[in-house]
Amino acid sequence: MSGLGARFADIRDTVGPLCVGIDPSTDILTRWGLPDSAAGALELGRAVVTAAQNRVGIVKPQVAFFERFGAAGFMALESVIQEARGAGLAVIADAKRGDIGSTMAAYATAWLAKGPLESDALTASPYQGFEALEPAFDAADVSGATIFVLCATSNPDAAAIQSASIAGESLPAAVAAMARARNHRGNTVGLVVGATRSLADSGLTERDLEGTLVLAPGFGAQGAQLTDLDVLYGSAASSVIPSVSRSVLGAGTAGLAAAIDDHRRELGL
Amino acid sequence: MSGLGARFADIRDTVGPLCVGIDPSTDILTRWGLPDSAAGALELGRAVVTAAQNRVGIVKPQVAFFERFGAAGFMALESVIQEARGAGLAVIADAKRGDIGSTMAAYATAWLAKGPLESDALTASPYQGFEALEPAFDAADVSGATIFVLCATSNPDAAAIQSASIAGESLPAAVAAMARARNHRGNTVGLVVGATRSLADSGLTERDLEGTLVLAPGFGAQGAQLTDLDVLYGSAASSVIPSVSRSVLGAGTAGLAAAIDDHRRELGL
Repeated sequence: MSGLGARFADIRDTVGPLCVGIDPSTDILTRWGLPDSAAGALELGRAVVTAAQNRVGIVKPQVAFFERFGAAGFMALESVIQEARGAGLAVIADAKRGDIGSTMAAYATAWLAKGPLESDALTASPYQGFEALEPAFDAADVSGATIFVLCATSNPDAAAIQSASIAGESLPAAVAAMARARNHRGNTVGLVVGATRSLADSGLTERDLEGTLVLAPGFGAQGAQLTDLDVLYGSAASSVIPSVSRSVLGAGTAGLAAAIDDHRRELGL
Repeated sequence: MSGLGARFADIRDTVGPLCVGIDPSTDILTRWGLPDSAAGALELGRAVVTAAQNRVGIVKPQVAFFERFGAAGFMALESVIQEARGAGLAVIADAKRGDIGSTMAAYATAWLAKGPLESDALTASPYQGFEALEPAFDAADVSGATIFVLCATSNPDAAAIQSASIAGESLPAAVAAMARARNHRGNTVGLVVGATRSLADSGLTERDLEGTLVLAPGFGAQGAQLTDLDVLYGSAASSVIPSVSRSVLGAGTAGLAAAIDDHRRELGL
């Protein structure tokens, strides 16, 4: 078992639960004085990996910012993932993939099997059905990885879909229930639950999340405060991975390590 | 305007509405006697592009089957997309991307902007909110491409999410209504509505789809019959792009063109 599920308690108890995003957007690359290219994305990724070591245990490359450069961007991403894992960091590939059958199995192969993009976790979208993600759960059972399924996301316009209800439950609560049920075998399913709204506003309770690993974007630049982690997630807080990207990357090369340390202090580390 | 929205009526009236998938899965590559590698995927893609010319107007590479080879797979995909477009075929990148804000904009850049993966259409997932896809709609407005938003998909386990309701409507009907509203400016939003269930069973009516371009997987190996196109989609049928993959690719190199011709005959072409 090399994946995130098995390792998270150790990571949290040693360096803390924080995850740092690797988001080589045009905006960030420009601020860093790097070219808006695959080469620039690689250089940013390497700098984040260096700064992350011994400060956090988890990094989260945002795949879209590499994908925009096509194959060249994927080559940069392969290097960033491999260097991060080589440095002992767990890698969450934030790709939000979702499909069915053999196609979903192919995405699982891309991100979880031995190969150039092998990661410790993958984010996935359940619109085509929770069970449609089963090929990824299966692959995660084998590799020990975690599949973080989108549940209640941090963006204001999420409600247009996520305020739907199904069999008397909110859609996010239904997704959380399916994750709990699937975790009875394998414990490889996590949830993405954004921190910009209260659980209640997302149609969730603390109990919906208990025992499930939660990836929580929305801290830092998106507005949620790391000092509020316990308030936001209550009894589920100990299984939450708070993720910061822009508030760290915006500090530039020189300020990167200090910005991570500031966030660690907000978590009492 | 180089995209699919503007071109579809012409395509339908000349070679017909059929779309052929480019799915280099392990299973298909093995049947073809090709290596299960990026090189094999490239060879299959090129063969499909050759057979598709003058038989259909649209091809649909399934990105996952290239992505499983990492950067090497994307390099193959770039060649397949460029060769297909160079041969006058419209390309639907079946990637089912979905995210928010600058991340969604980066996916739109990857698949719709001038660059190695530039395509005529992209499939997208709305779980994080329909409006969260706006950066892709914006990019499509500029390039003339179409964003096919997942609405009611063809897999049996889709109901676990898609049977949700929102403000008294089915989730698919709500997605279709948001697409219609967005199409008042730009007409760049299409819908993915699988052919394996009736519209009613998917919580949709013909009126929900009228005037919207529909990508319809589920024909051929998944069970729906091309001869039933009018029965399945009624008054919306003239804007439906029926897509076939395994039933064509399973015929192997030698049988590929004949298998496409068989499907064209089922459509009365």
